Amino acid sequence: MAKKVLIDTDPGIDDTMAILTAFNSPELEIVGLTTVFGNSVIENCTANALRLVELARRPDVPVASGAGRPMVVDAELIAAPVHGEDGMGNTHLPAPQGQPVGMSAAEFIVKTVLENPGEITLAPLGPLTNIALALMLEPKIAGLVKEVVLMGGAATVPGNISPVAEANIFHDAHAAERVFGADWPVVMVGLDVTTRVMMTPAFFDSIFKADTPYTRLLQKMLPVYQGFHHDFYGMNGSVHTHDPSTITYLLRPDFFQTEEWPVHVETSGRCAGFTIADRARQWGDRRPARVCVGVDAVAELGLLHERLTRY
Amino acid sequence: MAKKVLIDTDPGIDDTMAILTAFNSPELEIVGLTTVFGNSVIENCTANALRLVELARRPDVPVASGAGRPMVVDAELIAAPVHGEDGMGNTHLPAPQGQPVGMSAAEFIVKTVLENPGEITLAPLGPLTNIALALMLEPKIAGLVKEVVLMGGAATVPGNISPVAEANIFHDAHAAERVFGADWPVVMVGLDVTTRVMMTPAFFDSIFKADTPYTRLLQKMLPVYQGFHHDFYGMNGSVHTHDPSTITYLLRPDFFQTEEWPVHVETSGRCAGFTIADRARQWGDRRPARVCVGVDAVAELGLLHERLTRY
Repeated sequence: MAKKVLIDTDPGIDDTMAILTAFNSPELEIVGLTTVFGNSVIENCTANALRLVELARRPDVPVASGAGRPMVVDAELIAAPVHGEDGMGNTHLPAPQGQPVGMSAAEFIVKTVLENPGEITLAPLGPLTNIALALMLEPKIAGLVKEVVLMGGAATVPGNISPVAEANIFHDAHAAERVFGADWPVVMVGLDVTTRVMMTPAFFDSIFKADTPYTRLLQKMLPVYQGFHHDFYGMNGSVHTHDPSTITYLLRPDFFQTEEWPVHVETSGRCAGFTIADRARQWGDRRPARVCVGVDAVAELGLLHERLTRY
Repeated sequence: MAKKVLIDTDPGIDDTMAILTAFNSPELEIVGLTTVFGNSVIENCTANALRLVELARRPDVPVASGAGRPMVVDAELIAAPVHGEDGMGNTHLPAPQGQPVGMSAAEFIVKTVLENPGEITLAPLGPLTNIALALMLEPKIAGLVKEVVLMGGAATVPGNISPVAEANIFHDAHAAERVFGADWPVVMVGLDVTTRVMMTPAFFDSIFKADTPYTRLLQKMLPVYQGFHHDFYGMNGSVHTHDPSTITYLLRPDFFQTEEWPVHVETSGRCAGFTIADRARQWGDRRPARVCVGVDAVAELGLLHERLTRY
């Protein structure tokens, strides 16, 4: 039985790698993509999600368009320097053929979870706005979701968008606090592990040799992402493995070391977006998240290499 | 030439260990003790400082009494469960013979620094209120102090008084932000290193065999401190090495691995007291502190053992 996964995403260069990995994994049944602002504006993210299901020859997979801004903060927070103006490394692909479904991302999440009680794994790869909105629309989903495996946060390492905050969480800290505060099983795949898995130029060269429609797209998108990692981290052609690590966790949780820590999200001030691990339970009995703190990077890169070169 | 050190302190069980270590170190010339609230109320801390100069047969060393509360927050924050009601492990020693000098701790710091330009190392072992007040009284001291080597903060490890905050910083976060924001050389000896140096029951047993007035006092004080470490950390008779690590740094900085990071202190909200290391310089060009991130624990314990058993 394949694991039913709903991916909430703001594609996004690394979202693209994650989604292609997921579609190339028979262990997973992708029941839908929901989109959110983040790596680009919502219009681009939704168009990119449609492009990806078409590239994957899976136009049957529904795409639902979601939040274009955070729940509370009145600002459009877009990571254009990281992913290009179009969110896909300035590849400016043709418009997709398909259309998003006629309901919002949050409604689609609620509907899908209610129709598949206990079976849906939510895999949010961007700001958590849609997930928090779904919880508000129908709080019962907390008890009906199998697991929430999210890319975001930094518990034991510095942030990337601020000294303490990871970008996905920072982009909607109020939503993230809602998600970590709900009574459901959350797995945090954050910078604690994603910055320890480096995709190097040699890794990419090897992948590009497969010369499939997938790897050709990755090859076109990559320079913008490499440029950001160069300018911000001083890395020469290597990039961190953020969103694909979430899919890796879905496939092989045994690659990860985890801790059970209640996580609280700071929503204001200069620590906004900080995912605070309350290791000594000083802040009450919030249900602990499973926080990834270590990863077998070699094993993960081997898996990703194998999946990204399939077609 | 001995290094001229002014110790600002809230004795305090581990302050006592630190101060006795300092008095037993000919490499250091203790030019005065200034006192601050923290491990007990200011009246107790001042009395304890006087007791310590007398125990050390150094009644010539001036003691100046300082702040009884934080700069901004209107609360008396006292760590009585850690150090006992009297700050000395409920040993309730006789009253001291001497008196504090006729000026405040902040005034004494300013006077001492101005009279010894470029020569004074400040060694704060408690909340940083007096140090911040001294900076306010005479901003010129920033350019005249040799170094500020402080016990406090947690940059790469969790806090102890909250999931993110170390107690000394938390007890006056505004003062700490003032100290880390000033243009002077600050060394942060925080939980990143102090929790990695464990004084064990075997370590203490060996020290107590020296049977000096110093070790007899330590033996009387220790149970309260061990009790806190048991209740909070589940440690059986071992304790962390907080304030003595600052004196160790003064004697042997080569025992420590350090990083040059600008440090910002959060002053409000639930992250109050968090010492945020801005490793990627995302928050401007604040002068970096030297943050201790690693320590040769075996070497430090050997040094402390040798110094604490001298008399």
